[in-house]
Amino acid sequence: MNIMVAQSGGPTPAINATVVGILELAKRNDSIDHVYGALNGIEGVINQQFIDINQRIHNDIELDMLFYTPASALGACRYQLPENMNDSPIYQQLIDALKAKGVTIFIYIGGNDSMDTVKKLAQYCELKCIEDIQFIGAPKTIDNDLVGTDHCPGFGSAAKYIATTFAELEKDCFVYNRPSVTIVEIMGRNTGWLTASAALSRLNGGKGPDFIYLCEVPFDQEQFINDVKSKLQRGKPVLIAVSEGLKNVQGEYLSVIKGNALDAFGHQFISGTGKYLENLVRHRIGGKVRSIELNLMQRCAGHLSSKTDLNESKLLGAKALQAALDGETGKMVGIHRLSDQPYAIEFVVADIALIANQEKKVPLDWISTERNDVSASMIDYMKPLIEGETKLNYRNGIPEYISLY
Amino acid sequence: MNIMVAQSGGPTPAINATVVGILELAKRNDSIDHVYGALNGIEGVINQQFIDINQRIHNDIELDMLFYTPASALGACRYQLPENMNDSPIYQQLIDALKAKGVTIFIYIGGNDSMDTVKKLAQYCELKCIEDIQFIGAPKTIDNDLVGTDHCPGFGSAAKYIATTFAELEKDCFVYNRPSVTIVEIMGRNTGWLTASAALSRLNGGKGPDFIYLCEVPFDQEQFINDVKSKLQRGKPVLIAVSEGLKNVQGEYLSVIKGNALDAFGHQFISGTGKYLENLVRHRIGGKVRSIELNLMQRCAGHLSSKTDLNESKLLGAKALQAALDGETGKMVGIHRLSDQPYAIEFVVADIALIANQEKKVPLDWISTERNDVSASMIDYMKPLIEGETKLNYRNGIPEYISLY
Repeated sequence: MNIMVAQSGGPTPAINATVVGILELAKRNDSIDHVYGALNGIEGVINQQFIDINQRIHNDIELDMLFYTPASALGACRYQLPENMNDSPIYQQLIDALKAKGVTIFIYIGGNDSMDTVKKLAQYCELKCIEDIQFIGAPKTIDNDLVGTDHCPGFGSAAKYIATTFAELEKDCFVYNRPSVTIVEIMGRNTGWLTASAALSRLNGGKGPDFIYLCEVPFDQEQFINDVKSKLQRGKPVLIAVSEGLKNVQGEYLSVIKGNALDAFGHQFISGTGKYLENLVRHRIGGKVRSIELNLMQRCAGHLSSKTDLNESKLLGAKALQAALDGETGKMVGIHRLSDQPYAIEFVVADIALIANQEKKVPLDWISTERNDVSASMIDYMKPLIEGETKLNYRNGIPEYISLY
Repeated sequence: MNIMVAQSGGPTPAINATVVGILELAKRNDSIDHVYGALNGIEGVINQQFIDINQRIHNDIELDMLFYTPASALGACRYQLPENMNDSPIYQQLIDALKAKGVTIFIYIGGNDSMDTVKKLAQYCELKCIEDIQFIGAPKTIDNDLVGTDHCPGFGSAAKYIATTFAELEKDCFVYNRPSVTIVEIMGRNTGWLTASAALSRLNGGKGPDFIYLCEVPFDQEQFINDVKSKLQRGKPVLIAVSEGLKNVQGEYLSVIKGNALDAFGHQFISGTGKYLENLVRHRIGGKVRSIELNLMQRCAGHLSSKTDLNESKLLGAKALQAALDGETGKMVGIHRLSDQPYAIEFVVADIALIANQEKKVPLDWISTERNDVSASMIDYMKPLIEGETKLNYRNGIPEYISLY
């Protein structure tokens, strides 16, 4: 039999480790002939763009390179299957494309949208009594916003990047002995998990960010101004972490409060959350102020992956394939935490219908009572996830990554 | 006798390695009693804020941490001594402060402004026949714009960060199989050295940036639009590196062409060079376009330092102290390259009067004839400088850095 893997959604440094986990288990299983990769997620199935992954990986060194390579080596898409299965020929088209390749197991690695795709394909097969193809989801998102799993592969590596970057930005900001404000905007869509990881920069005694504002609570502009003003009184730099998804008390995203901002070409200027707050501080307080977007770097910094994250991601790939071999379909594999310290987890299989299209937010009691920092519970949760450094290979002074197509 | 070290200018991951080089040679020299650090550069001498560095470093592990810690561990300033030495009491005040601490050798680690300070202090001593204090400069700037040295400590590490980041951004951008434009703005003030280092992301077979625009040539907006349009025709993502200091053919910085841009508070909106070009592409071409500023991360990413850079930086520290012990003053230590491949250098001592307040630009024949990339000579020059990875220690998943005060 043949299996097929596809990847989707935003990049992470951990998404290819899951593929490696699948490849390694498949190799040990005599009943599996080919592990195909669909290019650009489910779109690759529709367009019948496949590769035989093992033909693109010639030795263990290249398999190792795949393990460390950030962003989907099979490409990704942003494609949602239509809701109405009966009226849309795309479902049968997908099943036919898989059958034509002799595929009986399809594993989709991704975030919320990808889990929705797995759910729908499994439901379609149930509806049409198609019993010879199984669909399994493997979680992956730096945003860490999937339910049904303690945390998502990709989060630990992005958190390690953010914690390290804050430890370094602190060194940078504090070289000048005068007040300044540096606002760092962090990804995470509508959840503050990644923003919270800025607090991990304090683990080795660093000051870390002076304030952390998560998007789980409405952003109170006046409190923010007061926070910044009071901290500036000590005459030192102030370092602040903010979620890209911050909303004001009226429920509007800060990033799209446009005022009369026009760019040099007379078009509406859409600033980011960090830029908005930079301008706010400049306007209301003045002085030296700058904003930084960690931008794409926070989701593709393979050179700073968490060993814990990559190892779990690989094991989840094997778990996904094993679940299918055990007869499961319409499921997502996930992580259940047994203990923070010592850190212990087990892998679980969860019904994907309970997972797709939901969003796991930071619990409010993991945010400080002043709503401008995180609590100790949040640190306990995140700390083990950034542990360990990888043995990424460097050549010519830069990391060695692989391309599969 | 006592010596004093101070640091100044913008942060780099290599600036503390020079201090380590000074400390190690001083330890081996019985005639040296104390190595003082002035806090926040020459301002620390004026304000008499000193530390005895060896009292803050308790063992070899901490010395190693100092070697790897990014940004000036002694703080920095942006202070220029007045031109007129006779009318300004600040010169004698500085000399008196140094003498009060028994300092006979003052080593200033920094960029152009710091070398100007060394030059003026040495000139003042010559003018006033003060023979018992020597002043030596040690170069440090990610911008690589100092003359009198083949390259500057700090450049190699920042270049390694940029090359690695481009290798990773390429992976990120190419996961979606559709046209998009990503513009990455890179530091370097009025020189394109750092921007050029984006090309090093191609060393392991990566595509690298599609275009690289250095500020050494006037930026032709129409050529840029044509470049981008023609590359977009292949239907794939386009990745572009630009210098923060790009100027148009009229000699205006792109970053300050403001048009009627106003922020949400009705103030003039000053966009960066990347943001300006992002808006230009959106306006003239359309489609998906984003800009990224590598911002402070490119100058403080100690976790991605170049081993070559840090080692050279340390050796330059020892060379600076040795030059002073040999009787030199008013000099800057520098690097003379003997060969690109195998990479070979020697350390030199140059007259600082010929160095201060100059700016070394990228030679025009190191830029491609189309003016949108670099030439092979540029690669040959940069390649050895990013070689080698450091053995930075991690604890709790983040790098272990030190604070001296």
